[in-house]
Amino acid sequence: MDRDGELALFANDAFYAAFAGGDLAAMDEVWAERAPVTCIHPGAAPLFERGAIMDSWAEILGNAGVSAMTCHRPRLISRAPLVLVVCYETLGSGALIASNGFVQEGGRWRMVLHQAGPCQDAPAFGAESVGAGNAH
Amino acid sequence: MDRDGELALFANDAFYAAFAGGDLAAMDEVWAERAPVTCIHPGAAPLFERGAIMDSWAEILGNAGVSAMTCHRPRLISRAPLVLVVCYETLGSGALIASNGFVQEGGRWRMVLHQAGPCQDAPAFGAESVGAGNAH
Repeated sequence: MDRDGELALFANDAFYAAFAGGDLAAMDEVWAERAPVTCIHPGAAPLFERGAIMDSWAEILGNAGVSAMTCHRPRLISRAPLVLVVCYETLGSGALIASNGFVQEGGRWRMVLHQAGPCQDAPAFGAESVGAGNAH
Repeated sequence: MDRDGELALFANDAFYAAFAGGDLAAMDEVWAERAPVTCIHPGAAPLFERGAIMDSWAEILGNAGVSAMTCHRPRLISRAPLVLVVCYETLGSGALIASNGFVQEGGRWRMVLHQAGPCQDAPAFGAESVGAGNAH
């Protein structure tokens, strides 16, 4: 794995840490501020405005139960300048599949795309921690 | 819109034309041959092998009803070298939301990512044709 990929995976980990921690300030740090951003929550229409995206996270992170959100098997599928990570997400008994995109902004890798949708045929996950299932 | 974005939107149109036409050979032309490819069908686990992806399309395109697949409001969300297009898809009364990624390979823009998932709060679509709803 190249250095950019490694750093983008750290940013992916930071996204899930903010998610599981219910930490809106950390989530705000994750998302790019200058590049165009897109967020597609499961079942929802896409959001293309940063303010609307952060409002959606404020609502989601205020819900009980987000602390169980876990990322599994993050996999790099593209390189710089736009690094894409595909990973499973579990929350309780349900599994989702997500594509997360990151670009470099001010020397840090920040999120420009998140699309998550239901995944009925996810594999069984063991006691993996965030990032531990990286296939590359 | 820059020229690369325009050409990637043509490739996006070609993807939906192959889909609606049930044309497996055209679908094969759409997908990149050298770059890593990822395909996430609604509800399914991600496919990372080109052969498995084409097998999945052979199965899907063999089903009756795919001719009603229509792309709505394609929107460019990133630029070259990896162009991402977010669009709605309708098939009968159901709506999906998709992220499609394209890279240049041998002078053509070819698909490297397709993720589609259900969208319960899609807007009402009029009589738009493929590509006609481009927001950029």
